[in-house]
Amino acid sequence: MDRLARYLPVLDWGRRYDRQAFLGDALAAAIVTVMLIPQSLAYAMLAGLPPVVGLYASILPLVAYALFGTSRTLAVGPVAVVSLLTATAAGTVAAPGSAEYVAAALALALLSGVMLVAMGVLRLGFVANLLSHPVISGFITASGLLIAASQLQHILGVRAGGHTLVDLGGSLVRALPDANVPTLVVGLAATAFLAWARKGLRPALQRLGLSAGTAALLSRTGPVVAVAVSILAVVALGLEARGVAVVGDVPQGLPPLALPPFDPALWAALVPAAFLISIIGFAESVSVAQTLAAKRRQSIKPDQELIGLGAANLAAAISGGYPVTGGFARSVVNFDAGAETPAAGAYTAGGIALASLVLTPLLAHLPTAVLAATIIVAVLSLVDLGALRRTWAFSRFDFAAMAGTILVTLGFGVEAGIVTGVALSVLLHLWRTSRPHVAVIGQIPGTHHFRNVRRHDVVCSPEVLGLRIDESLYFANARAIEAVVQEAVAERPEVRHVVLNCAAVNGIDASALESLELIMHRLHDAGIRLHLSEVKGPVMDRLARSDFVDALTGRIFLSHHEALAELAPETTRDCDAAVRPPIDAGRTFPERTQRGR
Amino acid sequence: MDRLARYLPVLDWGRRYDRQAFLGDALAAAIVTVMLIPQSLAYAMLAGLPPVVGLYASILPLVAYALFGTSRTLAVGPVAVVSLLTATAAGTVAAPGSAEYVAAALALALLSGVMLVAMGVLRLGFVANLLSHPVISGFITASGLLIAASQLQHILGVRAGGHTLVDLGGSLVRALPDANVPTLVVGLAATAFLAWARKGLRPALQRLGLSAGTAALLSRTGPVVAVAVSILAVVALGLEARGVAVVGDVPQGLPPLALPPFDPALWAALVPAAFLISIIGFAESVSVAQTLAAKRRQSIKPDQELIGLGAANLAAAISGGYPVTGGFARSVVNFDAGAETPAAGAYTAGGIALASLVLTPLLAHLPTAVLAATIIVAVLSLVDLGALRRTWAFSRFDFAAMAGTILVTLGFGVEAGIVTGVALSVLLHLWRTSRPHVAVIGQIPGTHHFRNVRRHDVVCSPEVLGLRIDESLYFANARAIEAVVQEAVAERPEVRHVVLNCAAVNGIDASALESLELIMHRLHDAGIRLHLSEVKGPVMDRLARSDFVDALTGRIFLSHHEALAELAPETTRDCDAAVRPPIDAGRTFPERTQRGR
Repeated sequence: MDRLARYLPVLDWGRRYDRQAFLGDALAAAIVTVMLIPQSLAYAMLAGLPPVVGLYASILPLVAYALFGTSRTLAVGPVAVVSLLTATAAGTVAAPGSAEYVAAALALALLSGVMLVAMGVLRLGFVANLLSHPVISGFITASGLLIAASQLQHILGVRAGGHTLVDLGGSLVRALPDANVPTLVVGLAATAFLAWARKGLRPALQRLGLSAGTAALLSRTGPVVAVAVSILAVVALGLEARGVAVVGDVPQGLPPLALPPFDPALWAALVPAAFLISIIGFAESVSVAQTLAAKRRQSIKPDQELIGLGAANLAAAISGGYPVTGGFARSVVNFDAGAETPAAGAYTAGGIALASLVLTPLLAHLPTAVLAATIIVAVLSLVDLGALRRTWAFSRFDFAAMAGTILVTLGFGVEAGIVTGVALSVLLHLWRTSRPHVAVIGQIPGTHHFRNVRRHDVVCSPEVLGLRIDESLYFANARAIEAVVQEAVAERPEVRHVVLNCAAVNGIDASALESLELIMHRLHDAGIRLHLSEVKGPVMDRLARSDFVDALTGRIFLSHHEALAELAPETTRDCDAAVRPPIDAGRTFPERTQRGR
Repeated sequence: MDRLARYLPVLDWGRRYDRQAFLGDALAAAIVTVMLIPQSLAYAMLAGLPPVVGLYASILPLVAYALFGTSRTLAVGPVAVVSLLTATAAGTVAAPGSAEYVAAALALALLSGVMLVAMGVLRLGFVANLLSHPVISGFITASGLLIAASQLQHILGVRAGGHTLVDLGGSLVRALPDANVPTLVVGLAATAFLAWARKGLRPALQRLGLSAGTAALLSRTGPVVAVAVSILAVVALGLEARGVAVVGDVPQGLPPLALPPFDPALWAALVPAAFLISIIGFAESVSVAQTLAAKRRQSIKPDQELIGLGAANLAAAISGGYPVTGGFARSVVNFDAGAETPAAGAYTAGGIALASLVLTPLLAHLPTAVLAATIIVAVLSLVDLGALRRTWAFSRFDFAAMAGTILVTLGFGVEAGIVTGVALSVLLHLWRTSRPHVAVIGQIPGTHHFRNVRRHDVVCSPEVLGLRIDESLYFANARAIEAVVQEAVAERPEVRHVVLNCAAVNGIDASALESLELIMHRLHDAGIRLHLSEVKGPVMDRLARSDFVDALTGRIFLSHHEALAELAPETTRDCDAAVRPPIDAGRTFPERTQRGR
């Protein structure tokens, strides 16, 4: 039962469900439903799919997540970035508007669902960690710009396309002479209203006498107001006849339940894209879920979240939808409106189902320019160019990863962008840790403390060289350590003992073990013994699994002081400050402050 | 002048060259020459090239390395693994034996030379660090097996081929009925003699009254003895008429000097292979050079080594050779024979040039089976299956990287093998560090020391949660830390302060900073303040470049004890040992030993 409840969290919270929780969930669901209708239509359009697919993706997937997800307040459904990734991937195998294109979107949901569930069962959630923060941030900024650019065609009432900023821009400029003025008026009016509504609607509602909370919630209904007003305008002013493009007939009714077509060739072609959709969707969703859970001192289980999102995508695949994940804005609304359990998601699904049954005839007259305006205003709020400046100040490495991701995404498309970003951040991490800080250390007279000889007035023994390694040892830096030791010893002919202080070494792998053995043998050939001091438990346990400890020419000392006391009991002298330590940099914070004192 | 000497080390050691150095170098060169003649013929055959190409690759490249290299004793020339990589790469663009094939090998030398020099000038030697020890070790074992299998055709006197063990094996089994018995006799005799000579020749020579040193050096001449005896046997017994394949006419004379043909399409096709050849050749060569330099307390400069090896490959490209690098066995012989400066390499080049002028007519009657035997005995000595067992005992992660490299190399070829190995070791490293050890720490009563509550009898404050993070913080583990803190706090409703002890945190990147900020905001939402203690200097400097320190809800304490004294001055109690700490494992070595006392 406990095991079952782990995979079906509904069995846990469902047993304690009461009237109070129901009221909170129902109110939140009503508000999220109103917010989700225009969003799901708009994101389906962004994905190049019929608008109704967005509605379908907002029904069963929400029920599936309610059963399997661990976040109390995450609101699942179509989101901007995943819609763009869907458009890119489906566009490589079929023409937008074709039945094959819709089938490709279904296949992406299916593959993504299978991958997410598999990663959850195998506990592989860590894969999402490969997306470093600068890469995600850069990717979202760049894809926000790409998405906004791709929607300008609907505002202008023209056709344009392309997967890069240059292609899109060129296509738009060429199409500019064909712009439809009534469409432009509707589109710009909607954009202006929605941009104002994000910031200005809430204080305006408060001035009308609404409470702060109610005003905050109602301010999220801007898109619905824009949708309703624009439908009225189209009908009243006969704008369709004046060239304003509308959504057109939306099939009325519930989503069709059917297994996606069996098409291994199509699946094979979409596997890489489905993998990107899965990990990007997961990374974004988990981050939202964790932030909201923390506010109520709850916690989520990332591996079970994989299963929850996987189930949602499988549900999308069998009910005419396309890939979904947790959305930021609507989850915050759900949370603020008082959702208490995942049941709120199921009630939202009910609301969208009702809309599919009842409201679809009205949507036929909805201008696509208004949907485009919804998307543009939503994604531009995600563009954060200031992050470039902050990241530059913090670290050139992280800046390089972020800037690389942005440039490649804008210049070569979303898939190239995310792959470049991940490769860059992994390589930069390896490079950053490939030259560890190593300090020659000496004793602060009269104490048991050892510090960098370049930073402190310390004493050393000419025969004993103490080196403190400030990094875990693994393959990327193992050879650097060899070189550092070799150089340090080559500069000090009188050295007879090398003591590596390992207090900051948190781990060691086989390459580093090999390097330690090489260092030991090379030192031995030169008549020098190798010792270690202050080795941490996990590292010691690891070393004990090899024959290194037995073969060691020197000893392993509990403290560096003990090593010095044993190896150089009498003769200490001032360290030769002129001697260049092998690698320059760094000091510990307490050291610096002690100096200041 | 100093700057010039950095790029041309010959300007440094050349000025101090004396008679003593000349004698040492000349003797070493004579012995290495004798050893190198059969090796260079054999490895050219392994690379699918005419044997004379091996001689050409052992002349100018050695002179170039003598001018630009930093190792005093590294012996450069054709080596087994690089020859196999050359065969694989050239085989994809041309048929072995064709002029295009030879041109492809030249192009590989050219590209590899350009890449190595470029990496040297840009100081990118760190790229070789991506080859972890288990990957190199597994790759050499697997390619040794592949090479040995590929040479069995010459021992059997048949034709067989393939780039994987399965293809090679199948091809050999099918060809078995055509085996030539005289060839088999010659081949097995040579293999048996060479295998014995590796171990048995030296004691035998010592029993004959030679000194240990002389015996050791002469024992390396086994291959030359086999070559000479087999040539005599072929001529005396008329073995060619009985179907024993021989090397055939070898052009007499010095290598032709010519720029390699300008062929951008060919170069583009060979770039990935040339890159693999470059980094594998460099990694192997640097490891040999460092080991030998250490024995005399010398040091080498890895970035200048890139330039030296690059120059050697460029020299090979303009003199009819193919890719070269530093060889292990011949460098050891060079060292043992008393080489004192890189001039020994230049003298060896002179010896090989002399052989090309004088000895080539004799080589026409050399059986290819003897060359194959030379290769088989040499590469099987590199096969180290015991390393699998040792690595398994040391770490499952490293074992997985090694086993993966071996299996993919044997099953899918050398290029797939090395790429898989690198990808595996990087992913496993990221995974290994993605779940850092985090301990809940408490105070050892009466001391300023804090230890893991699960390992020690310590006291805690119910309001202050101390967490020690035993890993540098970066993108792969940033989210794990978020989850750990969140879970730890969710389990302890009375907590009002969280103090992260950062004594073991050597670095922090933008993702980790973002996570710390998220942790801080989430804790703040739950009414908890976040503090840090014992932050190292480099980490503190990094944090100071963001606004994290200003925004921090708590303080940064120099010592964890200070934090406790400030935040929980009076009330401490026994830690609730039943409380499960967020992540289990590990302890420090001093702690364990102190317990033992």
